[in-house]
Amino acid sequence: MPRYRLLLEYDGTPFVGWQRQANGPSVQAALEEALFRFCGARTSVTGAGRTDAGVHARGQVAHCDLPAAHPPDTIRAAVNFHLRPWPVAVLEAAEVAPDFHARFDARARHYLYRILARPAPPALDRGQVWHRPRPLDTAAMQEAARHLVGRHDFTTFRAAECQARSPVKSLSALEVARAGAEVHVHARAPSFLHHQVRSMVGSLALVGAGTWRPQDMAAALARRDRRACGPVAPACGLCLIAVDYP
Amino acid sequence: MPRYRLLLEYDGTPFVGWQRQANGPSVQAALEEALFRFCGARTSVTGAGRTDAGVHARGQVAHCDLPAAHPPDTIRAAVNFHLRPWPVAVLEAAEVAPDFHARFDARARHYLYRILARPAPPALDRGQVWHRPRPLDTAAMQEAARHLVGRHDFTTFRAAECQARSPVKSLSALEVARAGAEVHVHARAPSFLHHQVRSMVGSLALVGAGTWRPQDMAAALARRDRRACGPVAPACGLCLIAVDYP
Repeated sequence: MPRYRLLLEYDGTPFVGWQRQANGPSVQAALEEALFRFCGARTSVTGAGRTDAGVHARGQVAHCDLPAAHPPDTIRAAVNFHLRPWPVAVLEAAEVAPDFHARFDARARHYLYRILARPAPPALDRGQVWHRPRPLDTAAMQEAARHLVGRHDFTTFRAAECQARSPVKSLSALEVARAGAEVHVHARAPSFLHHQVRSMVGSLALVGAGTWRPQDMAAALARRDRRACGPVAPACGLCLIAVDYP
Repeated sequence: MPRYRLLLEYDGTPFVGWQRQANGPSVQAALEEALFRFCGARTSVTGAGRTDAGVHARGQVAHCDLPAAHPPDTIRAAVNFHLRPWPVAVLEAAEVAPDFHARFDARARHYLYRILARPAPPALDRGQVWHRPRPLDTAAMQEAARHLVGRHDFTTFRAAECQARSPVKSLSALEVARAGAEVHVHARAPSFLHHQVRSMVGSLALVGAGTWRPQDMAAALARRDRRACGPVAPACGLCLIAVDYP
């Protein structure tokens, strides 16, 4: 059974999330169904990151085992054909070692959170940005973000239903940058807790709006209490950009 | 009757185009209906560029007369409220001189055409890019584009139904640039003929694919014959980025 790595792009809007669930369509189920139509066998697809409902990806990585070997370009083209009309695309397929694991071998995940900071709602980027009608102070947000980088107990920025064994995580980078009318938050870490990026972005938005001072972010982190977190930012602004492997 | 200038963003997908038509919804009609709900009077909206069905805008400019003066931010917010659920947004409103004309006063139009050049179809940018599965030679496209810049008879790149009096136009800039997996074509001119940008992009894509040599673009222009044009590029890749005024 040869193993393949798939590089994936998807629009998370119509999905209950990456993971197969009983209550609606998932990216995983769409891929497994397309693979079944391609090779005639049921195979399971394992993703590097289990993105939530409405979260997008431009660089999700997954692996799967197929009953027979095929040229990678054939797999990419055939799976894309069978994925229609779902907004999921296989950008690349590659044969990998039989012990490659998309989730456990990943060394870093890169996320981009897009905030559209202008009075008018989005017309062309609907469903891919968080609309904030009032201006945001990006310098204050950047200063606040610096308090979160490093190895910390992120209990404050962790969903109640998070299943990770420990709330201690290393945040490699958290960068705030203006891009036209948008504010982009780039987050990079070996791994994230459930809702961690959206929780950090929701709190950064409080700083940007002037409700919190930058140092309030350090205080919220130190509290190690979910109740100290700002409102969680909506899923639609978040996108899994890339996953790094050794 | 105070006159207002509106800066507009829209997703052209659900519209028959900018201009009001009997056969379906138009951006102009959506705006005029929203203005009617706001001020209770019928007013006509004049746009700088009459974009085709499926063509998008991030910087369309229009003007309209209202029966009474309102703060510009009130107009922007109220019209955006009444535009829902159409994917049209008023980014800015401003009171202008009563003789301001969005179309006749415009000095330059800027268009961006986005080509997604990769084997996999778009998942996140569906309806906003032209998907070309094979690689494009952007250096050859840029060389071909240079032949079109300047004052020329653009009959080759003009739709049969174009109503302009003369096919002679000045093309100020036509630039080809790679942006990740995309190829961007920027076009700027005081004004364009009907389908001119999409006709030029369709021919540039022939150059990028190696079907035409760069100098074939000069020959096609010199022919002054619609039959010398490549296939017209689809509407969805085109976006009106900005309109300049004195």
